[in-house]
Parts: sequence; C-alpha cells; structure tokens
Amino acid sequence: MNKVEICFSPELIHLHSLENKIVVVVDIFRATSTMIAALANGITEIKTFADLEECRQMSGEGYLIAGERNGLTAEGFELGNSPIAYLNDAYSGQKLAMTTTNGTLAISKSSEADEVLIGAFPNLSATVSYLQTKNQDVLIHCAGWKGMFNLEDSLFAGALAKSLESTHEATEDGAIAMKALFEKEGYDLKGFLSQASHAKRLQNHNIEADIDFCLTLDLYYFVVKLSSKQTLIKF
Amino acid sequence: MNKVEICFSPELIHLHSLENKIVVVVDIFRATSTMIAALANGITEIKTFADLEECRQMSGEGYLIAGERNGLTAEGFELGNSPIAYLNDAYSGQKLAMTTTNGTLAISKSSEADEVLIGAFPNLSATVSYLQTKNQDVLIHCAGWKGMFNLEDSLFAGALAKSLESTHEATEDGAIAMKALFEKEGYDLKGFLSQASHAKRLQNHNIEADIDFCLTLDLYYFVVKLSSKQTLIKF
Repeated sequence: MNKVEICFSPELIHLHSLENKIVVVVDIFRATSTMIAALANGITEIKTFADLEECRQMSGEGYLIAGERNGLTAEGFELGNSPIAYLNDAYSGQKLAMTTTNGTLAISKSSEADEVLIGAFPNLSATVSYLQTKNQDVLIHCAGWKGMFNLEDSLFAGALAKSLESTHEATEDGAIAMKALFEKEGYDLKGFLSQASHAKRLQNHNIEADIDFCLTLDLYYFVVKLSSKQTLIKF
Repeated sequence: MNKVEICFSPELIHLHSLENKIVVVVDIFRATSTMIAALANGITEIKTFADLEECRQMSGEGYLIAGERNGLTAEGFELGNSPIAYLNDAYSGQKLAMTTTNGTLAISKSSEADEVLIGAFPNLSATVSYLQTKNQDVLIHCAGWKGMFNLEDSLFAGALAKSLESTHEATEDGAIAMKALFEKEGYDLKGFLSQASHAKRLQNHNIEADIDFCLTLDLYYFVVKLSSKQTLIKF
C-alpha cells in the first residue's frame, strides 16, 4: 500500500523527502481554491510567483495579474485572491499571473517532487480519483499562514487522507492526527472552521461568499497540476 | 480570558512570540516524562544540554549523566532516556545532567519566555492548577521528532488546552485542532498513540513499560520549571 503524509508548513518542508512522491499543495483560504475557480472558468494557465514585483511585470506580457498580501489585493493589481471574481467565465481565455501570501510559496517549495497538484474542496474527488490511479506516495503540503499551522489547510489534508484510505495508508503522525480530526469535525466544516484564525481574518474583509465557495465540495471534475516550474494547468 | 496556543516543533518556535508567556515544553516519549520521574524520585536538579559532549563532561562535576540519541542510550552515558530507571528513588539525592534528541533542544529554544515549565501526563493536573493561578497566556511547545510534528506531544498539548479551558481560550488554530482531537481520542490514549511513529520506534526498543509510564495521568503533584537558563527543579 502507498502512504500519505502531511507537512503543515512550508517552513517544515525541508524535513520531508519529496523524492518519488506526488505533492498536493493546499491553501484553502484562498489561493488553491481560487486557482481551481480560475481554471474552471476559462483561464488557460496560471503562472505562480513568490515575488510581487515579478508577478506585476507579467502584465506587460499579456497576463492578467492577481496579487494578494495579508488577505487584501496588493497595490497595483487587477485582482486579489477571490475565487468568486473568476466565476461565470469572467476572464475566460486569458492567462493569469498570481502571487499570494502563502500558497505560491508552498508551490515553489514543492517543485522538486515528481508531480505537484493543487488541492481544494471544489475538486477534491477528482484529485482523489487521479491519485488513486497512481502507484505513488502522496505528501500533502499545507501552505499555512506565514509559516504557521492553520486549521483549514490541515483539515482539508485530513479529508484528503481519509478519502485516500483504500489506497494510501496514513502511517505518519500528521496524517493520523488530521484524518482523525476530519472524522470528528468533517460533518460541519463551515462551523468548525469559523473558529479558524484565517476565517476570522477573512470575515473582517467581508468575504463570506469566498469562504462558502472554498468549502464547497466537488463543483468541478478536473485535476490541476504544475506543468513546468511555475505554470499550473488543468487536465 | 487568557489564551493558549500550540507550537508543533522547535523549527517553528521563531514564528511565535514568547513575550509575557509561560511556555510548557512537551516531549512525551520520553524526555519530559523522564524529567518528571527523576525529580519525583529524589533527583535534586536537572541540567539540560543540547550538546552530547558538554553533557558528558558534567560527569566530572559530580553529576549523574543521561544521554539519548535516536531513542537509544548514547555512548559513554550511564543512563538513556527511560523514566523507569529513576523509580524507587534509584538515584535519590543526585544531580542529573541530561541531553536528548528533541526535548532538551525545545527547552533551550524556550528560554526567552517569562517562565518555562515541563509538561507530561504524570503531573498534568498539577501543571494545570499552577497555570490557572497565573494570569498569563500559555504557549505549549512540542518537541516533536527531529523538527517534525508528532502525535503524542500534540495530543498532550490538546489535553492541556482542554484542561485549561475555564481560564485559557484556545483561539489559535493549533490549539483548536488539538483540543478537538483530544476530545475525540483522549478516552484511549494508549490505543490511539500506538499508531504514532515514535511509539513504534520505541516498541522496537522493547520499552513498553516506559510507554505505560509516560501515559499515566497524575502520579505526582508538583510542577517542574526552569530555574535558570538550563536547570530544572520541582516546586
């Protein structure tokens, strides 16, 4: 049986081996949920950047640019980090360049893995099905909040570990813990996660609709993967 | 109301503020459990070392020396990291110098806090009562395993957060998660923790009795604190 493990922060990823693994990067509120929304609504590719300035410059190369820092749209960017903004094919046919506080860093720190996927509730089942066709160990890499453990990414990781249990064993401590936590709290994700520090941070920004989107299961049936060092595509 | 938070690894402690907080260092299998056993059985003080060689040299200064690396007694040390070794006042009246793989590092990385306590199941209630007399925020610092999240330290942290709930609010994500996990799994600590990677590591070393000791609640009623940069005493 293959294995599933969880890394709770990009600050801990150097302690995990990425070799021969598929890494699933998770930033539920909101980067990876937004990526899924964008690609589901006609965005053709997403180039990710850790650095604001490099991302901003993509505007000159025909990219729509999205930049978020500390939950808000970064200065000089057309878009922030809201999945809702992409719905109804609002930007269909465009290429997107994106930088966020946590999610894009976690992607860049995962790029040595065999394969990097993007994890979010709106396409969870598609990701699970894909992983179950592959005979490889899975490492779930939570983006966290500025290096710290966060509740929503960890609970998603538990949901994913739980969904993989017929093919991937949770023997690593983080996966054991979060699978058990999801078994307890998964019946009311929104209620449990309303306590999370980042949900509170987002509530201050009046983005309840974003939170609802981010916690909606299986709106879409496709997988998102890193096709080159920094470019995400759906397939 | 005061607050309680959890740091899951010494590798993440730089992200937490220690200012005006009481830090409780936790290394359930086995460093902090062993410290409690030693001080309960007549050891008069424990000096902690991150470095093996510095610890070994304390032998020349009249200290009993205990050294553990990777779960085994380090070469040239009288004692390893077994709490059982100290029972029945085996070394009563002696001073102890101690170094372990994870626990002593977590202590040294906590020393900037207002006060540093040692957390373990055998004196959990005493630690809770003491913390509840203090009007200060609590940070639970899990030693983990070589920088990684581990199940037993995190679940103890959840037990402590739960016990403190009448005076200390769990608003931080790690504390919310582990309090909920303890509520689910706390009724059978030994069963749940038998899955933990470090419990398996210890089973390979045939130290079932150590594990039983480490998971026994409230054998003793005293608190252990850092009295100077590296010396632990009971009070």
